[in-house]
Amino acid sequence: MAKTWTTPPSDALRASSDLVLADVDTRSTPGFAGDKAYAAQTLESGREALSELQEKLFAGSRTGGDRGNVLLVLQAMDTAGKGGIVRHVVGAVDPQGVHHHAFKAPTEDELAHDFLWRIRRELPGPGMLGVFDRSHYEDVLIGKVRELAPLDEIERRYAQIVEFEDELVANGTTVIKVMLHISFEEQKKRLAERLERPDKFWKYSPGDVDERNLWTDYQGAYETAIQRTSTDRAPWFVVPADRKWYARVAVQRLLIDALRGRDLSWPPAHFDVELEKTRLAAS
Amino acid sequence: MAKTWTTPPSDALRASSDLVLADVDTRSTPGFAGDKAYAAQTLESGREALSELQEKLFAGSRTGGDRGNVLLVLQAMDTAGKGGIVRHVVGAVDPQGVHHHAFKAPTEDELAHDFLWRIRRELPGPGMLGVFDRSHYEDVLIGKVRELAPLDEIERRYAQIVEFEDELVANGTTVIKVMLHISFEEQKKRLAERLERPDKFWKYSPGDVDERNLWTDYQGAYETAIQRTSTDRAPWFVVPADRKWYARVAVQRLLIDALRGRDLSWPPAHFDVELEKTRLAAS
Repeated sequence: MAKTWTTPPSDALRASSDLVLADVDTRSTPGFAGDKAYAAQTLESGREALSELQEKLFAGSRTGGDRGNVLLVLQAMDTAGKGGIVRHVVGAVDPQGVHHHAFKAPTEDELAHDFLWRIRRELPGPGMLGVFDRSHYEDVLIGKVRELAPLDEIERRYAQIVEFEDELVANGTTVIKVMLHISFEEQKKRLAERLERPDKFWKYSPGDVDERNLWTDYQGAYETAIQRTSTDRAPWFVVPADRKWYARVAVQRLLIDALRGRDLSWPPAHFDVELEKTRLAAS
Repeated sequence: MAKTWTTPPSDALRASSDLVLADVDTRSTPGFAGDKAYAAQTLESGREALSELQEKLFAGSRTGGDRGNVLLVLQAMDTAGKGGIVRHVVGAVDPQGVHHHAFKAPTEDELAHDFLWRIRRELPGPGMLGVFDRSHYEDVLIGKVRELAPLDEIERRYAQIVEFEDELVANGTTVIKVMLHISFEEQKKRLAERLERPDKFWKYSPGDVDERNLWTDYQGAYETAIQRTSTDRAPWFVVPADRKWYARVAVQRLLIDALRGRDLSWPPAHFDVELEKTRLAAS
């Protein structure tokens, strides 16, 4: 895999505290040394690698070993391709090992609690790959743009998020936060396609244009949120996503590298193998 | 697909109230008109069909239409291949649309409730494909064999299960219950393999041989449970599983046929398409 990437996405896409979102070219393919066809091959061959790593993570947790896990947070403007990441990247992993949750507008019950309450309830268990389609970041994104909370409350949330994620990491979770970054023009094209295809109508909502009309505000809210919450423990990656094929290989590789970073191995037998062979033979 | 199956598995594998489990050849391939290689092809080409059907189911639920869903219940003796079904059949579906849950030995909290309590908490939401790896049937299987409840209580549970599943079906769930049926000899081979391969140790537990030594009791408990709870609304399918390739195509086809039986279509637009095109163009 080494030759596929001139720079691994964990370096090439890492967001720093002085991120300027407008400086990130949404059509660029940082670190990737190939075209669309090569990306398709890379994605295909990465499926097994990812799947095996995830099985090792899962296996460890099932035998009282490493109880750690991985949490992938996906945030993006509408149509940026969160769903495609879930289907084409996460889809390679055994469903048994995945905990996926899509966060919608909070319910009354959820609003009656601290904003992290509903997030904690959906954290992945030991050995699992958790995937958040939207997340606690909505509370500093739409929360800020739509003024759902006062600004000083939004400010407090950045710090609360950093503290929360530090706690997750301390408890053995690898946290990977991905913003899929598309351009205003690309979104228009993709929304238009949804309005042309009856098999895509269900993905469209008139509210999408309302949100789109606040594009600049959202970009600003993303930029600030990422600046304030991208830490060494729980980094943000800004993934150019106008080219879906790039976003998919990039996120796949981020996951693979994160799992490799956990230094996983098959757990040893927690029983006497020879004794069990004898018992089985006698059965 | 028609030529692949001489009889669809929904007919060929359907368990009736006079099921004799010992009469089902675990190496047989009922209804399937091909060999292992053909089965691999069939499985591959069925992935897209299953995935698209599931997306339609999901789409309907997202737009206020059909709120129905599908529940696949997997039961089997150890090593029969539940995990392989999840990985290779369910794995074709967008993770976003799958709610998978593996039921373990009940916790103290769960034991303090009715046996269906923990089951209800894991039922799939609207538009989802729910997958139960073990289920409420454990309470009439290990529950009976290990005498975890008195026999008259086990008897009551059969009726409670039928009532419970009738309720699910009435609320729009398609219920598919699958017993993966392997032979005593095949299980020995598969357990032995787990003891030979360090990457499989984690799947083995000394308790597996204890359960194996109660094989006849378990077969009897399965037979009775299936006889008592296989209804037209929520039928049981006994899937010969010594040949993994057969079990996988069979369950895939059961799912595909169940979804086709729901007569799914892409939901219509719940907005004025032309108006939205204008709004988008102006944005």
